[in-house]
Amino acid sequence: MPEQKTYTAALIIIGNEVLSGRTKDANTNYLATELTAMGINLMEVRVVPDLEDMIIEAVNTLRQRNDYVFTTGGIGPTHDDITSATIAKAFGLEHGRHPDAEALLLAHYDPKDVTDARMKMSETPAGAELLFNPVSKAPGFRVENVYVMAGIPRIMQAMFDGFRHTLTGGEPMQSRSVAAFIGEGKLGDELGEIQKRHPDVEIGSYPFTRDGKYGTSLVARHIDPNAINAAIDEICALIRKHGVEPIEEKL
Amino acid sequence: MPEQKTYTAALIIIGNEVLSGRTKDANTNYLATELTAMGINLMEVRVVPDLEDMIIEAVNTLRQRNDYVFTTGGIGPTHDDITSATIAKAFGLEHGRHPDAEALLLAHYDPKDVTDARMKMSETPAGAELLFNPVSKAPGFRVENVYVMAGIPRIMQAMFDGFRHTLTGGEPMQSRSVAAFIGEGKLGDELGEIQKRHPDVEIGSYPFTRDGKYGTSLVARHIDPNAINAAIDEICALIRKHGVEPIEEKL
Repeated sequence: MPEQKTYTAALIIIGNEVLSGRTKDANTNYLATELTAMGINLMEVRVVPDLEDMIIEAVNTLRQRNDYVFTTGGIGPTHDDITSATIAKAFGLEHGRHPDAEALLLAHYDPKDVTDARMKMSETPAGAELLFNPVSKAPGFRVENVYVMAGIPRIMQAMFDGFRHTLTGGEPMQSRSVAAFIGEGKLGDELGEIQKRHPDVEIGSYPFTRDGKYGTSLVARHIDPNAINAAIDEICALIRKHGVEPIEEKL
Repeated sequence: MPEQKTYTAALIIIGNEVLSGRTKDANTNYLATELTAMGINLMEVRVVPDLEDMIIEAVNTLRQRNDYVFTTGGIGPTHDDITSATIAKAFGLEHGRHPDAEALLLAHYDPKDVTDARMKMSETPAGAELLFNPVSKAPGFRVENVYVMAGIPRIMQAMFDGFRHTLTGGEPMQSRSVAAFIGEGKLGDELGEIQKRHPDVEIGSYPFTRDGKYGTSLVARHIDPNAINAAIDEICALIRKHGVEPIEEKL
């Protein structure tokens, strides 16, 4: 099999409200799940406040070392929405009204409802490509490999659905999981040996409590189901050796 | 009023399972809320995989610029639990069994249940201070300003409760929030003016949809309730000017 290119992504969640605990971030789990299914490995997530320096640091570090960077948050109409202007700074680009975004918003709002604050949402870094927002019109945008989306999950997801077909992924990771009512510490030594015999399969071990009983979920991940099954076979044999029956889990 | 020292923290969530979407991280919101209440500003969160280089980069960057760094995840008994050994590397410390942790685990497990994998949980960087784990015994640890905790929320919270009284915070941020059924874009221009007149108050604007109606929550944050109330008074006047009645929100 020829060497596969792996595709990587990073996510930047921008917003004081997540760091103060006011808002629970839901975008990480959504994008992690979707990107994984598309064969794009999410390598890192950073949650940063609405502070220019920290946004620039995150954007410029992560766009150098990933195929894709996604940001959520900070593209609304108010004074605390600084993402767009800050992305322009990170790239050293001018920042101003994008003619298509301007037209979009002017068509959307009743003329008496057009405010400077709302028209701020037509501003992008120079040369940015707009990302369609079917929910509330104000678009996101892309500069090079950085995709700038809204923070509200419903709008973020709609934006992502609009451009996801343009992203390139590798062979998607498959996974299979078995659970057993046995402590992971009892399996750990031999599980480590199984991992060594299957170095390319990513084997994860996750303890849980269900109905008051301790157990462990064992997850094997690889692009090739045969490689996964070979590792899971050995894991099931190990569990049975301890007198416990493994339970296939739906992921 | 004399200049207050502000205390800052960063959080590192370690684990492939969050980045693949398998697990929803719950530790960020818990620690964000608790730290904020203690007067410690959570400045940044990073979610990184179980990869040595990325953990070291995050730990060594964030411990230099924050009063506290907290990590969650990767301190269990299996091969994919590399946090402890990696933190030792980040600090350039030896890594081995901590005598107190060893005694704790040997006292906890039936001798027949003692495995190398379980005893791996007694390993810490040399000189680390243990963090008590009332749930499952295997301790967390602290090296300088880095607090290493379990990933399972229930255990992480129990560990945090054990040492939280040792953390120093500043005056805790207070906040007050009012909601109004009006688009934030209608308020944005004048809201920006209010922010300029109250530069020390952090004013946030968060759109929402409730019962199919669009609205905006406006949150003012400061250590001094008088400063908050002065800003909220102006915000309420602005909302009323648009013919809408502001609604006080519980946070």
